[in-house]
Amino acid sequence: MRRPDARPLYVQVEAILNDRIVSGSWKSGQAIPAEPELAAELGVSAGTLRRALARLEQRHLIERRQGRGTYVAQQTSQQALGQFFRVRNLAGRPVDPETVITAVTTSPASEEEARRLRLAPGEEVHRIDRSRVFEGEPRIAERISLPAAFFPNLTLPLAPKQLGTEIYVHYRNAHGIIVVQAEENLSATAATEADAAILGCPVGTPLLLIERVTFDAAGRPVELRVSRLDTRAHRYAVEIA
Amino acid sequence: MRRPDARPLYVQVEAILNDRIVSGSWKSGQAIPAEPELAAELGVSAGTLRRALARLEQRHLIERRQGRGTYVAQQTSQQALGQFFRVRNLAGRPVDPETVITAVTTSPASEEEARRLRLAPGEEVHRIDRSRVFEGEPRIAERISLPAAFFPNLTLPLAPKQLGTEIYVHYRNAHGIIVVQAEENLSATAATEADAAILGCPVGTPLLLIERVTFDAAGRPVELRVSRLDTRAHRYAVEIA
Repeated sequence: MRRPDARPLYVQVEAILNDRIVSGSWKSGQAIPAEPELAAELGVSAGTLRRALARLEQRHLIERRQGRGTYVAQQTSQQALGQFFRVRNLAGRPVDPETVITAVTTSPASEEEARRLRLAPGEEVHRIDRSRVFEGEPRIAERISLPAAFFPNLTLPLAPKQLGTEIYVHYRNAHGIIVVQAEENLSATAATEADAAILGCPVGTPLLLIERVTFDAAGRPVELRVSRLDTRAHRYAVEIA
Repeated sequence: MRRPDARPLYVQVEAILNDRIVSGSWKSGQAIPAEPELAAELGVSAGTLRRALARLEQRHLIERRQGRGTYVAQQTSQQALGQFFRVRNLAGRPVDPETVITAVTTSPASEEEARRLRLAPGEEVHRIDRSRVFEGEPRIAERISLPAAFFPNLTLPLAPKQLGTEIYVHYRNAHGIIVVQAEENLSATAATEADAAILGCPVGTPLLLIERVTFDAAGRPVELRVSRLDTRAHRYAVEIA
């Protein structure tokens, strides 16, 4: 016999609805059932359901549209950028990056990749090397590492602008991976020769090093991303409240 | 005749209660009146009051204590550090900084200070130069600029460890300034000779440059802080959700 679930009821309801979204049983962009109907189906009060929905909304998995109901959130490029891309120009305005993918390879995870992505020794990762261009110049050199088991048959175009959407939208649409959260560690580093070639800066230029681990809606680490940002004309913005 | 206030009622209630905290009419650590009493006094529904209280709680101005009621938040050093200090060691653990103040001066604001702090030309700022020591080494060199008009008679001890609390607690207790929010812009820079002398690193070492503007509970910019973090053994942590 299973032990009764000790979590608060609204957390259990959140998990059930989360599963429906992750599994694709509720599809991106679809309206979810009306609250009274859903509460009755799940056998919970309106208040419990509303608390669970509020948490899903906070996690950007559903969205309420004024007077029109509640929908499974569509992860658009704009939404992904707004949530995850913190780069601003010196006037404080968001920038609109283009992406140039230069290499996609697959091989066993390094020690660092395995640790960050919680992989067993020998498990494979895909590595995507790319640069991001905004306001006319390449400003970020980055490598994305993905557990190959979560991204079977990964295919990405190797030419500029052919991936017309943010890569998190691609994860969702092509691989069913819904990114909801990330942890970043920031530090400063000196541009290597490789950085200098990509970013057009002198070797040794101080760069902002951003090490990101991204988690999907099931709480699994699904991406390690190491970005090197040229901050001569840009900043990484943080709001603390 | 004043025009009716167009803001939602709960926002107006939030502003009224915010004023009571900022003005000191409700003091730090004091229990606030029970919800039914407060709702009756303000002439609003329990739901509206609760929504206003939830916003004040989110802003760390009040805190609910399980089964004991709601209190005006006391800004402790631990709370201030937890909210505003993002430095972690390489194991991902928070560090416990000591502060060494090396100079406190007062003079007219620079152009940058005036712009960031919204001061008129010629207005004075206090400048606090200090370093922060953790895990045995000075790791941050920073300058804090404060509008002198908000901080009359600023006196700070010029010796290590004599300011036993975080400076935001000092702002509140000695100057009635309640810090609730900050915007930070991060970039990378090379250590100058002055940085190298403070941080014990070679000139040219890449440092994480953190430019912070801090806002008080009334929404005014009350602090400009420029910090230079040695990231050889530490990181600046960001959570994105």
